[in-house]
Amino acid sequence: MLKKKRLDEISWEDYTNLTQEEQAPYLVQANGRPYHVLIAQQFERESLDALCDLATRIRKIAKSKDGMRFLSDLLAHKRAMLYFHQPSSRTFLSFYAACQILGIALAEVRDPSISSEQKGESLEDSVRTFSSYFDMIIMRTPFQGFVDKMAWILSNTERPLPIINAGSGKDQHPTQALLDIYTLQRSFEKSGGLENKHIVFCGDLKRGRTVRSLSRLLTFYPNIKQTFAAPDSLQIGEDILQYLRNANVEYNVTNDFKGTIPEADAIYMTRIQDEWDTSPGESKKIDLTDYSFTGADLERLPRKSIIMHPLPRRNEIDTACDNDPRAMYWRQMRNGMWIRCALIATIFGRDVAINNYYTLNLK
Amino acid sequence: MLKKKRLDEISWEDYTNLTQEEQAPYLVQANGRPYHVLIAQQFERESLDALCDLATRIRKIAKSKDGMRFLSDLLAHKRAMLYFHQPSSRTFLSFYAACQILGIALAEVRDPSISSEQKGESLEDSVRTFSSYFDMIIMRTPFQGFVDKMAWILSNTERPLPIINAGSGKDQHPTQALLDIYTLQRSFEKSGGLENKHIVFCGDLKRGRTVRSLSRLLTFYPNIKQTFAAPDSLQIGEDILQYLRNANVEYNVTNDFKGTIPEADAIYMTRIQDEWDTSPGESKKIDLTDYSFTGADLERLPRKSIIMHPLPRRNEIDTACDNDPRAMYWRQMRNGMWIRCALIATIFGRDVAINNYYTLNLK
Amino acid sequence: MLKKKRLDEISWEDYTNLTQEEQAPYLVQANGRPYHVLIAQQFERESLDALCDLATRIRKIAKSKDGMRFLSDLLAHKRAMLYFHQPSSRTFLSFYAACQILGIALAEVRDPSISSEQKGESLEDSVRTFSSYFDMIIMRTPFQGFVDKMAWILSNTERPLPIINAGSGKDQHPTQALLDIYTLQRSFEKSGGLENKHIVFCGDLKRGRTVRSLSRLLTFYPNIKQTFAAPDSLQIGEDILQYLRNANVEYNVTNDFKGTIPEADAIYMTRIQDEWDTSPGESKKIDLTDYSFTGADLERLPRKSIIMHPLPRRNEIDTACDNDPRAMYWRQMRNGMWIRCALIATIFGRDVAINNYYTLNLK
Repeated sequence: MLKKKRLDEISWEDYTNLTQEEQAPYLVQANGRPYHVLIAQQFERESLDALCDLATRIRKIAKSKDGMRFLSDLLAHKRAMLYFHQPSSRTFLSFYAACQILGIALAEVRDPSISSEQKGESLEDSVRTFSSYFDMIIMRTPFQGFVDKMAWILSNTERPLPIINAGSGKDQHPTQALLDIYTLQRSFEKSGGLENKHIVFCGDLKRGRTVRSLSRLLTFYPNIKQTFAAPDSLQIGEDILQYLRNANVEYNVTNDFKGTIPEADAIYMTRIQDEWDTSPGESKKIDLTDYSFTGADLERLPRKSIIMHPLPRRNEIDTACDNDPRAMYWRQMRNGMWIRCALIATIFGRDVAINNYYTLNLK
Repeated sequence: MLKKKRLDEISWEDYTNLTQEEQAPYLVQANGRPYHVLIAQQFERESLDALCDLATRIRKIAKSKDGMRFLSDLLAHKRAMLYFHQPSSRTFLSFYAACQILGIALAEVRDPSISSEQKGESLEDSVRTFSSYFDMIIMRTPFQGFVDKMAWILSNTERPLPIINAGSGKDQHPTQALLDIYTLQRSFEKSGGLENKHIVFCGDLKRGRTVRSLSRLLTFYPNIKQTFAAPDSLQIGEDILQYLRNANVEYNVTNDFKGTIPEADAIYMTRIQDEWDTSPGESKKIDLTDYSFTGADLERLPRKSIIMHPLPRRNEIDTACDNDPRAMYWRQMRNGMWIRCALIATIFGRDVAINNYYTLNLK
Repeated sequence: MLKKKRLDEISWEDYTNLTQEEQAPYLVQANGRPYHVLIAQQFERESLDALCDLATRIRKIAKSKDGMRFLSDLLAHKRAMLYFHQPSSRTFLSFYAACQILGIALAEVRDPSISSEQKGESLEDSVRTFSSYFDMIIMRTPFQGFVDKMAWILSNTERPLPIINAGSGKDQHPTQALLDIYTLQRSFEKSGGLENKHIVFCGDLKRGRTVRSLSRLLTFYPNIKQTFAAPDSLQIGEDILQYLRNANVEYNVTNDFKGTIPEADAIYMTRIQDEWDTSPGESKKIDLTDYSFTGADLERLPRKSIIMHPLPRRNEIDTACDNDPRAMYWRQMRNGMWIRCALIATIFGRDVAINNYYTLNLK
């Protein structure tokens, strides 16, 4: 197999001057598996399919006690640190559970004030020090580019170790994109797969990073139509639309969310990201009446369509929908745990063992 | 075996209109074992005896390295979340250790500010989301009724899972009641059991939930006499006394704590719960001189009697008593760990395996 | 083997009246292994050599998956509590990882505000309660003498358990001293060992406890020369110099740090401990220009010499030095994890099993 480029073969300056698509090959192991997981752009159709398949196998293996034992032995010799500078119990617990399923011992650094950073140490020193006790870092920070910088720094030491980006700044949250893809793939498994489907995005499409990432990844699947339903001030960025045009993807930009419901295979609702407001109360002024999904909308949604939401939600989806079989947002959470299992197992090369176990015992 | 009623067979409104005694059957599995553990009232003599016996067996099994291995394999395929909205290292660590003994992988949500609740999510959504990664929730909150509500909500989803109440509001703390029963049962194992004993409660009997729960559970044991020694303003509630009268239990209400010491089989001291004061300094005004247990009192306490305290203590018990063999409050803590092991093992149906191991190896 | 004295054979008053050298024998088990680890003075040449050898064997065993399995089974029946009153992610994570390697289940009490201490409980009661769930306590507090007091209290109960001091007040941090010794021993393994070397200490030698502890421990190794390079106001204490004179150790006190570099076998840099300033900005007034190690200094440092730092650092060492093979400070961190593994394994008597495994499989 061809040796892929790696982060120790390029200077930090040169790396940061690349586009994200150009950066992708530097994040991959010689055997083609991901090493660092920093950006959604480092995945393509083939690796997405492999991860989704592996996630499903892990999920099925985990149904039995014997299967759980097999899984929890796979990486029992590894230790991971969850370094979470930003609050997110959701993502934190999902990674936590995924590591536990694979037997990885865990330690966390959650509140940056409980740390030697108080003593005037640089963040880079802190992370490099902490990393010396572990085999992997799962990191969430509010500082754009910091995860990438740490990946580059550690790749250039005697003791490199993989870093997974669990959300950095406004920019990237690659494992969220993976779990969305996995949820779509799993939901349409028995109805012809993800191809030829119509995905409607609704809500704060301007600032939500999950929609931006997912929209790009969907271009890998043939003949998907994307609709962006939002008030003008929260509509999807022109850069994404340009990306879709370049990829020859059919799309539609609209204010009429309710009108899209009967045509949708998947409705992807999102929360207003008012933490990014540039003036106080900016988001409050926007009329959002027509951009939520109500119990009444359930009747207009096709029988095999699904409703997704990255959560947390406010009022975008009425709780009356929660127990409808098309409400996929709780399962979506759980899918996040399985796809993260698949990703971490792949990073450490244990996908082979999982596939063998599955073939022998469950096929 | 008869199928017992369950929380998915009753509406939330109907459930909340029941008395706690009427609620109890909805918390039990079809096989008779507890599923959710929400209220002390869901236990009766038979299940208390079974839990105490199991706790003792677990404790004895845990004495050897082989025994610890056996125990830690029992639930190694399960993951539990400790969701603690209220500070309580004591209860937290006790559950934590109990789960570790049984091999359960753990994750914690302790400080509610480190969470997506900041993003406007409802508490119900948070807990339901977090629950999707785990197989059991152990929950402590300041909100009365919230644990019950979550148990009901989760029981009505596709993926129900058991919830243990680790203290909710002023009301219920069922596993504290269990550990008190276990401590009494264990302490009197060689002196005729819990029957026919005289239990003296002292301190803030009005507001301490542990005394209220324990007092009710003691009615299951024949011929126990209960004495309530407290200043008038902190005396036990009339509802409890009514309950004892209905159950034909002999009781005594007094201001003379010191006078009860020579007659007591167990002295149960409690802390003034001034966090529930309705006006500032309310508790400070009460003269508590005669409601503490001192080194001198040890001489007046019968040789086989015991001193209990749910801890934390302030001045209710002099530290001079700490190493007296009748001071049972440290062991009481440790009993809490064992009875919680027994409870969790029973919820997951592993009591059978434990009893078999015990019969084969230790009997 | 002679039964050594123990903490239950002396009153607290008598114990505190002893010198630290006199206290040392009370911290040892009957079999000669450490029980409590409270002060650097309880180690001497023989036990330091044994710990360093064991740490190296553990490190080598840990290189294989089978080795990791062996290690993680050694103490899988034990549970430890990390009680950290003071922030220190570094020490915390190092102990955490060490325990994980040995299979010890862990629980932490990090933020004292999340605890029943709020309810008016004494610190002694809190620790004694928490201890009832665990088999070992690793404790860091800002209160001088508190760790020792808890060790004495617990040794005088029915359920004693070992306590490791992970840093107490300005005074003691014994495992830091151990990791420094191990780093020196490991670095000079192929160049004649620690004997006959010249160690240069630089920075805040007055207030840094690591230098004070290490300087004393180095007296166990023949013919080591110690140089103290610092501004007058931060120079090493006269008590240490007196100690070195009593031990017949050659030393040198100087303001000329840069002049010592070409003569040093090891440079031990330290941070200004301005958290101990007695007036605001006290440390800021000191001219520290000549007390840092720069990229240019690398050229004047002998090829086989090493640079150490207990971290965190500020500007004492230029980041330009970080990837030089003589920069030992990152590896020093990792050494801390290995020597803590060795220490904990020894406390629980598993050193024998490790040495046997090593002899059978790796020698």
